[in-house]
Amino acid sequence: MFLGIFFSSEAQVRDTIRIPEIPGYKTLKYDPHIHTVFSDGTVWPTVRVHEAWREGLDAISITDHIEYRPFRNDVISDHNRAYEIAKPLADQMDIILIHGTEITRGMPPGHFNAIFLEDANPVDEEDWRDALRAAKEQDAFIFWNHPGWARQQPDTTLWWDEHTWLLENGMLHGIEVVNGGSYYPEAHMWCIEKNLTMIGTTDVHGPINLDYDIHGGERRPMTLVFAKDRSAEGIREALFAGRTAVYFEDRLVAPEWILEALFEEMLQVRSVTRHRGSYSIMLFNPTDIPMQISKARGNEPGFEFFRTTTVPAGGYRSVPVYIDNAADYDQIELKLIIDNFMVEPDKGLPVTMTFVPDNL
Amino acid sequence: MFLGIFFSSEAQVRDTIRIPEIPGYKTLKYDPHIHTVFSDGTVWPTVRVHEAWREGLDAISITDHIEYRPFRNDVISDHNRAYEIAKPLADQMDIILIHGTEITRGMPPGHFNAIFLEDANPVDEEDWRDALRAAKEQDAFIFWNHPGWARQQPDTTLWWDEHTWLLENGMLHGIEVVNGGSYYPEAHMWCIEKNLTMIGTTDVHGPINLDYDIHGGERRPMTLVFAKDRSAEGIREALFAGRTAVYFEDRLVAPEWILEALFEEMLQVRSVTRHRGSYSIMLFNPTDIPMQISKARGNEPGFEFFRTTTVPAGGYRSVPVYIDNAADYDQIELKLIIDNFMVEPDKGLPVTMTFVPDNL
Amino acid sequence: MFLGIFFSSEAQVRDTIRIPEIPGYKTLKYDPHIHTVFSDGTVWPTVRVHEAWREGLDAISITDHIEYRPFRNDVISDHNRAYEIAKPLADQMDIILIHGTEITRGMPPGHFNAIFLEDANPVDEEDWRDALRAAKEQDAFIFWNHPGWARQQPDTTLWWDEHTWLLENGMLHGIEVVNGGSYYPEAHMWCIEKNLTMIGTTDVHGPINLDYDIHGGERRPMTLVFAKDRSAEGIREALFAGRTAVYFEDRLVAPEWILEALFEEMLQVRSVTRHRGSYSIMLFNPTDIPMQISKARGNEPGFEFFRTTTVPAGGYRSVPVYIDNAADYDQIELKLIIDNFMVEPDKGLPVTMTFVPDNL
Amino acid sequence: MFLGIFFSSEAQVRDTIRIPEIPGYKTLKYDPHIHTVFSDGTVWPTVRVHEAWREGLDAISITDHIEYRPFRNDVISDHNRAYEIAKPLADQMDIILIHGTEITRGMPPGHFNAIFLEDANPVDEEDWRDALRAAKEQDAFIFWNHPGWARQQPDTTLWWDEHTWLLENGMLHGIEVVNGGSYYPEAHMWCIEKNLTMIGTTDVHGPINLDYDIHGGERRPMTLVFAKDRSAEGIREALFAGRTAVYFEDRLVAPEWILEALFEEMLQVRSVTRHRGSYSIMLFNPTDIPMQISKARGNEPGFEFFRTTTVPAGGYRSVPVYIDNAADYDQIELKLIIDNFMVEPDKGLPVTMTFVPDNL
Repeated sequence: MFLGIFFSSEAQVRDTIRIPEIPGYKTLKYDPHIHTVFSDGTVWPTVRVHEAWREGLDAISITDHIEYRPFRNDVISDHNRAYEIAKPLADQMDIILIHGTEITRGMPPGHFNAIFLEDANPVDEEDWRDALRAAKEQDAFIFWNHPGWARQQPDTTLWWDEHTWLLENGMLHGIEVVNGGSYYPEAHMWCIEKNLTMIGTTDVHGPINLDYDIHGGERRPMTLVFAKDRSAEGIREALFAGRTAVYFEDRLVAPEWILEALFEEMLQVRSVTRHRGSYSIMLFNPTDIPMQISKARGNEPGFEFFRTTTVPAGGYRSVPVYIDNAADYDQIELKLIIDNFMVEPDKGLPVTMTFVPDNL
Repeated sequence: MFLGIFFSSEAQVRDTIRIPEIPGYKTLKYDPHIHTVFSDGTVWPTVRVHEAWREGLDAISITDHIEYRPFRNDVISDHNRAYEIAKPLADQMDIILIHGTEITRGMPPGHFNAIFLEDANPVDEEDWRDALRAAKEQDAFIFWNHPGWARQQPDTTLWWDEHTWLLENGMLHGIEVVNGGSYYPEAHMWCIEKNLTMIGTTDVHGPINLDYDIHGGERRPMTLVFAKDRSAEGIREALFAGRTAVYFEDRLVAPEWILEALFEEMLQVRSVTRHRGSYSIMLFNPTDIPMQISKARGNEPGFEFFRTTTVPAGGYRSVPVYIDNAADYDQIELKLIIDNFMVEPDKGLPVTMTFVPDNL
Repeated sequence: MFLGIFFSSEAQVRDTIRIPEIPGYKTLKYDPHIHTVFSDGTVWPTVRVHEAWREGLDAISITDHIEYRPFRNDVISDHNRAYEIAKPLADQMDIILIHGTEITRGMPPGHFNAIFLEDANPVDEEDWRDALRAAKEQDAFIFWNHPGWARQQPDTTLWWDEHTWLLENGMLHGIEVVNGGSYYPEAHMWCIEKNLTMIGTTDVHGPINLDYDIHGGERRPMTLVFAKDRSAEGIREALFAGRTAVYFEDRLVAPEWILEALFEEMLQVRSVTRHRGSYSIMLFNPTDIPMQISKARGNEPGFEFFRTTTVPAGGYRSVPVYIDNAADYDQIELKLIIDNFMVEPDKGLPVTMTFVPDNL
Repeated sequence: MFLGIFFSSEAQVRDTIRIPEIPGYKTLKYDPHIHTVFSDGTVWPTVRVHEAWREGLDAISITDHIEYRPFRNDVISDHNRAYEIAKPLADQMDIILIHGTEITRGMPPGHFNAIFLEDANPVDEEDWRDALRAAKEQDAFIFWNHPGWARQQPDTTLWWDEHTWLLENGMLHGIEVVNGGSYYPEAHMWCIEKNLTMIGTTDVHGPINLDYDIHGGERRPMTLVFAKDRSAEGIREALFAGRTAVYFEDRLVAPEWILEALFEEMLQVRSVTRHRGSYSIMLFNPTDIPMQISKARGNEPGFEFFRTTTVPAGGYRSVPVYIDNAADYDQIELKLIIDNFMVEPDKGLPVTMTFVPDNL
């Protein structure tokens, strides 16, 4: 009979995802798109809280479809029920549960999540404009889901007039740049051009371990939220301010200033050792995101070093750098690209790594 | 939108559990104790079919509690509904779904599974004797669940008069020797002494990957059924005949004749190489169950070999054997114990391994 | 005390790499670039045979440097010694050991492996042309190693006059398209343009498990050789004929006809299920190479299906296909690209997948 | 070309083995029995330093056999050479390298390691007594290796007169209780009875990843040394004082006072939650050693709780405890056994876990 703080007597190990903070903000891990048996998911709402706790998340939203509930003959409830079931356990386990729902229409305009709702029932409107207005009236944060889903946008990922209407009427605040295993480069560019918040989600329907090798260390896609404090209100303020990064498959998608701030905390030069004309630079990465680095254009012709390298998560990499006339330099600057920190589709973050040669 | 034979567009990989057949019978893998949201489990019935398919099972039973349904205010149905929901998918995926239920009472007599039901609703009786009678009337196979569950048998695992009554009245055909992570030595002995069928189950409530590292190759406990054919009827006949083995944590519990028959198919001498006074015996294990071997008493004094060794699943082990006066022997017999083939609690299977020395 | 066929009493499990044959040829797995303590590697030659056996290889070459032997004060021998030490064990374990060496010079011309040598000592010549001539005189197969190694070609991967000279004088038969973790697109194109054999190697120096997660299922880069029979002579004939593929990180690089022939054996349509206007196509991949598939241009406008999908190694994927006017078609043809079958850099293999709609 | 602090440009990730300190001492991880190509191992000495660093060790000893050097025709050196080769790298990587050797004789007396040598060459004596005397003259710490090795003690693990002679003459300070995959219960008892230091080693010969799934998180057996400081001298003092624990396969073997001190730092009661007549006790284990717990005899009859449970490494376990008349107790004491903390063979550590019931 299941009682107790964790509602279960199973062994529980919580993943610690090492991602640094950036100055002034806490880094919260949030998955804002999740389903349960209260729409077309296949697990009970409490499972989502357990999964979130194990995987090191700070916050989740259960966003069951308003319009699509294939189990409705067996699972009978209104649109708030999954939230109500999960809330006590989330409180016990210190997971921030943010109430949400998915508005599920054909294209245009497609599917949208509305989060920070008080009551999901008023969103059950026949006309999609009315549904989204009902969410807006509750001051919801609204984002467009999987804009490149092949079923709705079979060959190209298009922005429709309906999305312009939503944007102009304050009913579109973000877009999923990543949904499950899909990254949408068009959505990435729209977020940059239209100043929309970048969102990453799982849209998970089944038990999460069927989709991701959690035991083996694989992590779900998620939205990193850079919040003033660890609370629902902190997340809300950060989402409306656009302070997010999408973390998926060892990559980050975010506004450039955020990637720069993270980079500052991530790559460390631990030592510099001289061997005649060359230097061994010992790099360390204290985080759980490997750093994939390539040489940028514009380096000094007399510096020879790797074309590409990787500093593994939580690990070290020694790279040799050959310098002509090292004695001429007080400080060596290497121009690099962090390939897995995406400032645009196919464009990594340009950075400079600096070290002081030992010129004795 | 869920369509398709697998009800999902997820990638699917099916585990192949290599366990040999024994002469005259197919080896079927069966988990006869599983829960869903229709009692106190936390997944939809179809999840159980997907899990079974992925993990290489041939058959499962969903055995939701008759008496304990904490989600009954949201999930409204009779006692056959989980079966009905899972059946079409099981048929598509070629998983044998055997209808069952769990009769859930305080000790004595505790919890029982009744399987091979036509209709679980008549089992919903107030008196436990009536409930079990209702199962018997449908010719169900009935087994006692987790007889050593600490909540019901806190310090010792006891056989009560009520169990004698059930046995004498044809309402007790097997016992769980293994339930999830627990092995019950008393139950093992009762099966031997009273000629009851040995059963192993998961009793899984949540998504199975939370309990077992499926991605990493961990396997759930299960009942191996040695059946005349791969069908529900084949399983039924074998269960009533006691032709089962419990497979859990790289161990087998079974009647001795079954373990002997399996052993014959499992340990192969691939080569014998002579080096002066010693022989290298190359052993091969073509199955997924490692063989943990120790030296038995009573070997020839002139034979020197390992005290313990392991032939890994699907792998090889070269063992040295030192023989005095090898020329005196036409054939070498080593007396061994297979420690993880349990004929009784703490008692492995005695076997003889034979090889022909090269006496040139 | 080491005795026995495997020179060790350790447990041994051999990986089975499931890659199909192509008509008329066996698919052999060969790593032709490996080091030991007889140059600057850090393991004894027998370790290389054990590693090869465990990892499912058919053949290896130990190719210690002629010119670079940092341990020569402790490890004293001629250039054939590593081969001589490894050969008896390779014979016992049925690994084809092909004698080779690495000619190790500055750029140009860089490093070269010569394999199928009788005697590596004559290759120890001061002038690189003489060293390569000495290899040619033994009818060696000669390939250029890591042509894009940053230390020798810091910013661009160039073809030098010296390579033209080697090619014109019959001393260059192949190029490493993959060396360890590096893929060289320029080398890939040179092989296509100049009709050279595509080679993939590890160039491993330390214990291989330090570089690859062998226990976890990661596989080393290798050259697949499509040989008339499983023998050193079979490999030699295939290499000179250019019948190879490079297998690395779940990708294949090969001549287009080879990729086409492999594809024919790899993607299977297991079932087609109709649901009103759509079909679920169950794909199966019986190999250990996942198939990464994207939609090609030029499909019928009335066919709607995935943009990208993956059929996992040894697994299934159900994909929905929506067809307008399915009754008009006797057979459906989907034009696809297999992205991880590389016919050129960044260019996957174009294929057509066909299925018959059920038009009842 | 190998340069740089790590002698390699490979990516390096160091394991962090979370084992607590005990009051007054640092917990150092030491493997004092390792081979290289300078006896019958198959890797170069530097590999051992890299392996140690990756696996989170503080200290190692390379202990090549004095008497058994099968590669001596190729690898030519005196008995100090492996140490000399490994030492500069060990210094760079902050691994404490303690010079040692293995004295390798038939039984009696068998094999011995002598560590903390200045010069291993004088140990090369024909008579075993002279060899051990030569080690003693250098104030070496001497321990008996694999006393139950089946080749030397085929059926029983015996203590010979020769061992008494060694003990009485100050040439026996410890015994391997664990060597690789073997635990010797007799050696465990001898250490307790004769006040000898308990030692655990790998005796590794090949690349360590062939024997242990390092990538997958498996750890080698090792000796935990409770030292006043992290230095060779600190280890020496602790070894002679008997302050060690053997850590292998998630178990600890040690003097009882050490196990008690470790336990105090390992099991934490994180919360106590009341549900009518029962309590949920949330246990947390901040270390990398799982805690396998069983109920001891002598608990209050009114307390009902688990028979066995496990608190996973770095994880949580919620256990229900049912208390009759909880209001009568200011504090609840549960008597437990930590089964994997072995104070004797088959005897776990008895402990008491205390919590305060919430009696509102």
